[in-house]
Amino acid sequence: MKNNSAVPEPSLDLLERAEAVKVASISLGQTSCSQRQSALEGMANALRNRFADIVSANLIDLKRSESEGLSKSLLARLKLGETKLEGSIEGLLQVAKLPDPLGSRQMHRELDDGLILERITVPLGVVGVIFEARPDALIQIASLAIRSGNGALLKGGSEAKCTNEIIMKALQEGLRTSDVNPDALSLLTTRKESLGLLKLDGLVDLIIPRGSNELVRFIQDNTLIPVLGHADGVCHLYIDSSVDIDQALSLAIDSKTQYPAACNAIETLLIHEKIASTFLQKAIPAFDKVGVNLKGDELSHSLGVEDIAIESDWSTEYLDMTLSVKVVPSVENAIQHIRRYGSRHTEAIATNDKDIAEIFLRSVDSAGVYHNCSTRFADGFRYGFGAEVGISTQTLPPRGPVGLEGLVTYRYLLRGKGHIVEDYSSGARTFSHKELPL
Amino acid sequence: MKNNSAVPEPSLDLLERAEAVKVASISLGQTSCSQRQSALEGMANALRNRFADIVSANLIDLKRSESEGLSKSLLARLKLGETKLEGSIEGLLQVAKLPDPLGSRQMHRELDDGLILERITVPLGVVGVIFEARPDALIQIASLAIRSGNGALLKGGSEAKCTNEIIMKALQEGLRTSDVNPDALSLLTTRKESLGLLKLDGLVDLIIPRGSNELVRFIQDNTLIPVLGHADGVCHLYIDSSVDIDQALSLAIDSKTQYPAACNAIETLLIHEKIASTFLQKAIPAFDKVGVNLKGDELSHSLGVEDIAIESDWSTEYLDMTLSVKVVPSVENAIQHIRRYGSRHTEAIATNDKDIAEIFLRSVDSAGVYHNCSTRFADGFRYGFGAEVGISTQTLPPRGPVGLEGLVTYRYLLRGKGHIVEDYSSGARTFSHKELPL
Repeated sequence: MKNNSAVPEPSLDLLERAEAVKVASISLGQTSCSQRQSALEGMANALRNRFADIVSANLIDLKRSESEGLSKSLLARLKLGETKLEGSIEGLLQVAKLPDPLGSRQMHRELDDGLILERITVPLGVVGVIFEARPDALIQIASLAIRSGNGALLKGGSEAKCTNEIIMKALQEGLRTSDVNPDALSLLTTRKESLGLLKLDGLVDLIIPRGSNELVRFIQDNTLIPVLGHADGVCHLYIDSSVDIDQALSLAIDSKTQYPAACNAIETLLIHEKIASTFLQKAIPAFDKVGVNLKGDELSHSLGVEDIAIESDWSTEYLDMTLSVKVVPSVENAIQHIRRYGSRHTEAIATNDKDIAEIFLRSVDSAGVYHNCSTRFADGFRYGFGAEVGISTQTLPPRGPVGLEGLVTYRYLLRGKGHIVEDYSSGARTFSHKELPL
Repeated sequence: MKNNSAVPEPSLDLLERAEAVKVASISLGQTSCSQRQSALEGMANALRNRFADIVSANLIDLKRSESEGLSKSLLARLKLGETKLEGSIEGLLQVAKLPDPLGSRQMHRELDDGLILERITVPLGVVGVIFEARPDALIQIASLAIRSGNGALLKGGSEAKCTNEIIMKALQEGLRTSDVNPDALSLLTTRKESLGLLKLDGLVDLIIPRGSNELVRFIQDNTLIPVLGHADGVCHLYIDSSVDIDQALSLAIDSKTQYPAACNAIETLLIHEKIASTFLQKAIPAFDKVGVNLKGDELSHSLGVEDIAIESDWSTEYLDMTLSVKVVPSVENAIQHIRRYGSRHTEAIATNDKDIAEIFLRSVDSAGVYHNCSTRFADGFRYGFGAEVGISTQTLPPRGPVGLEGLVTYRYLLRGKGHIVEDYSSGARTFSHKELPL
């Protein structure tokens, strides 16, 4: 798998820059909380000093991208006007105030008299982040990386080239006023560099792709470096037979329409057959009113859903105002459908029956499983994490919305007084394994 | 990377068996702690019922392997006599008594009035374990999998074929007397099946290879499934200038010789130049006495180390009674050497200087970093985890010796009363983010 022709070897220049980030990350990882907070304040000051330059550079990117025919929605994401930039700087200062993710003692145990084990959180090292269009993502990700003591290689969209370059210049100017080596951040600008990044195992500890499903899947399939992210968000809402119909409909509409392009929006509505007729009678005109196009299985079609869903609909992440609908005979059947077609992101049940809800919460193995609330709550800010690195649908932790904890790992420290294992093997000494206060 | 010709597609039979394990794992994941404990007791009883059969089957494996020329050390690992088998059964019953890794609430937070977030530990699903020679590993791994609510596909060494088959038969007989579906465990017997396992992404959630470095590296390079393990254990002991020479020598000898084939044994000794002459004067005859062959850099050679180390020695895991020796001018230099040649497993410093020790503990980014104790302590049992799944040298958690926690993940459960995100987006409602008792 290592010899994938789709991914070229990294250039010497990229290797040297990644080495520089790695070296800078080593001292960054040993800075105190307040040193990293000051670094973020320096970054905020430098962004303020460069405020007008950034807005101007963004206008150049916007003009060029418009003439190149970039879509309206992408232009909106690319735009970094004064309000959005000020918001980003405020966000950066919020990250400075988040609790320090480093140096936290997760374990403290006496193994024997004078032999003390600790488990302490430490930075990952270097993260590689690939993001598209939005240049404010650069500010957010750089602040999360520095706050958590990690170096970062950052690759933005080519549309935002000028904006990203001036932002990175400012961020490094800011770091220069602090105890953090500005080499800790490096901007990648070409597609070749972002491909080269995938081969930097040994120098890069985690890749965070923030972009299209295709981008994420390509990265997951083409690197030996761990990837934090999710390719698909095929989320479900199951409407049980014992349900408050108005509440269920409100949940369905919010889960679908509150931001249909989000990964935590639902793509499929599963409805218990006992309630299907009553529910759809109300739901069909309601969805029509807010502009949602329904695609139903045979049963829901017979109950008034106009368009027909085909097999591929059940695994499609529409990311727009389309919703597939299926009538199921039981909660078990809904769970089986989710297991077969879902992407283990977030699923919800609407029911008044607590026992049925608990069956659903216990049986559905997605990162988030909800009862009587919208799937759109699957988000780091809404969970109270302060800032979000991304959402992971992998089985292993970190899973679901990931805050700063996704950028740290831990290290075991063991302090002794000449303790050797032979003494325990021979029976001369025995372990005490006594918990000490954290 | 997906189309690797070294790894064939799984056979239909393997797919069907893996599906059966997956299905069984779903209900297993919902069993109570006491149901899983009873299942382990059933497994222990069944092993006792089959005690004589297992010992006889092992004799057949031993006889065949001996005639096929298996090495003495591998024959010793293959042997499962009455004492070792009884020990394994005792170990299984110990695993039954470990604290339940499932259903633990890691987070409990009110997001708003009536909207409650929980984070609960859940099983991974299905684990694939590849182990060599030792048939008792099958008992240990099966017990860890069932205790943590996971299904398991288990591939043992072909030398232990008869022993593994009768053990698996007994384990399934034991499960049949419990609430756990015996399909949760399945034995793979051919090399083709173990290769097919690597392609079971979607059905298998974690692969744990317990074998040679080559085996682990091959697996890491050839699967999209997360791998828990380590390819190399190039561990270091650094002897600082301010040191108790006798204690340092005792640490060096224990770290090298207590079990030289272990991954946590040291391969390289780094010695501060100020102490090198005094230390080596005592160390050379001491190592000679216990049968350790030293290979030195130029400086240590000039101080009496007979054999010369070449560049490749610094990254070699000897796994036997050979130790490379290098004289360094400072702790920083020792740290640089470790960063360059180490495998981020376990490194130790011997010093009386607390400040130097803290520099080392803070700067070396290995899963375990020790002060004045043997690297051989890097082990789940010695850390007090009760049982060990393996040792991970990856950056991301779980890292270092991994107990049952490596076999669980978590799920976010959110319970509301019809809460929708639009209300928070419009400002009609705001989040409270209030911590609740765990």
